[in-house]
Amino acid sequence: MPPPTVEERLAALEDRDAIRDLIASYGPLADSGNAEAVAELWIEDGSYVVGGMAEAKGRAAIAALLTSETHRALMADGCAHLLGPVVIDLEGDRAVARGHSVVFRNRATGFEVWRVSANRWELVRTADGWRVERRFNAPLDGSYAAQALLGISG
Amino acid sequence: MPPPTVEERLAALEDRDAIRDLIASYGPLADSGNAEAVAELWIEDGSYVVGGMAEAKGRAAIAALLTSETHRALMADGCAHLLGPVVIDLEGDRAVARGHSVVFRNRATGFEVWRVSANRWELVRTADGWRVERRFNAPLDGSYAAQALLGISG
Amino acid sequence: MPPPTVEERLAALEDRDAIRDLIASYGPLADSGNAEAVAELWIEDGSYVVGGMAEAKGRAAIAALLTSETHRALMADGCAHLLGPVVIDLEGDRAVARGHSVVFRNRATGFEVWRVSANRWELVRTADGWRVERRFNAPLDGSYAAQALLGISG
Repeated sequence: MPPPTVEERLAALEDRDAIRDLIASYGPLADSGNAEAVAELWIEDGSYVVGGMAEAKGRAAIAALLTSETHRALMADGCAHLLGPVVIDLEGDRAVARGHSVVFRNRATGFEVWRVSANRWELVRTADGWRVERRFNAPLDGSYAAQALLGISG
Repeated sequence: MPPPTVEERLAALEDRDAIRDLIASYGPLADSGNAEAVAELWIEDGSYVVGGMAEAKGRAAIAALLTSETHRALMADGCAHLLGPVVIDLEGDRAVARGHSVVFRNRATGFEVWRVSANRWELVRTADGWRVERRFNAPLDGSYAAQALLGISG
Repeated sequence: MPPPTVEERLAALEDRDAIRDLIASYGPLADSGNAEAVAELWIEDGSYVVGGMAEAKGRAAIAALLTSETHRALMADGCAHLLGPVVIDLEGDRAVARGHSVVFRNRATGFEVWRVSANRWELVRTADGWRVERRFNAPLDGSYAAQALLGISG
């Protein structure tokens, strides 16, 4: 295989940068209650599996998670969906990113760590840029399912 | 508009990388007590609004936050100013970055989540590289003001 | 000194991207229990100093940290090794990265903040890409040693 050209190297860095930015935008959008913008991080028929809580398929269902009673109550108390840096495996028009998310919730006694999860993001390049096809989230409660989400993709 | 040149694409990636690095340096500098280096992340007359705590204008005032009794007490107990990844909107010589910050504080009973905030960074390109013009920080306590900092910039 | 060429600028961005990705992979690998892959983030005789807990020298010793009783118990309860973004000082074939790590542990009463640490990563370019030569980790408990790890490298 010939070494990658400058153009190819630049494009790979742009892809990785765009994916990091896309995922970094989830928390700010979620915590500012922008359900529509959150949903548009996904492709039209993308899915979001929130382990133990919900399985949303399609943008309308994903947006509904953000307008749900659970999310509204979190926002009313005060919350932060902190997503850590992700490790990205990029392969052409597809990518997998893995990382943690932590939800902090404001309580009368101070902030509590409300949920700590493993995340696996499956992303695709579209005409509008990188989008999420599937996101799997599962609480790190000792279960193998959550640990496996963080493992190297096969 | 013609497609961006290799030079322009490279420069945009360098800008985004420099902004990420600048913001990633805040926590380590703050938690090692380097008030001067923290202040130099800002332009000379930059500002830092710490919601509910302080409004600092200019490098001397920003450095003073780091030599304050509050910050010294945090460092004496043991603290971490963890700043999550930011989403960056870059436009020429200016940029806006949005993300969370969490301050952990060491207590006799273990680490507590002392403060969880929304952050909006307004950055400018200077002759010495990217610097912060204004940083707005507000605790995510359910208030609209903090949520709005995380929203898409108008 | 002549300005850097496109090739040099691209290579610097690739280096920084690779280092970010390497460090971002630690948490997911640790929390999925992949001791071998964790060890391979280091060079063969790399070292990992976990302040107050362990000093591991060489890949076998580093892998052993991940198969230890301490780490197995953490995983059985449910844990997340969240590593924040790092600030990177790149100099040719070597780099230093500084940042925080937080270990969350699942307890019967919810998630607790089990450990909050300063981290200094010393990295080297190898024929197989960037690897960790030495990682120093120390709990941010008010001690000068931990704070110093986050300070600007001399």
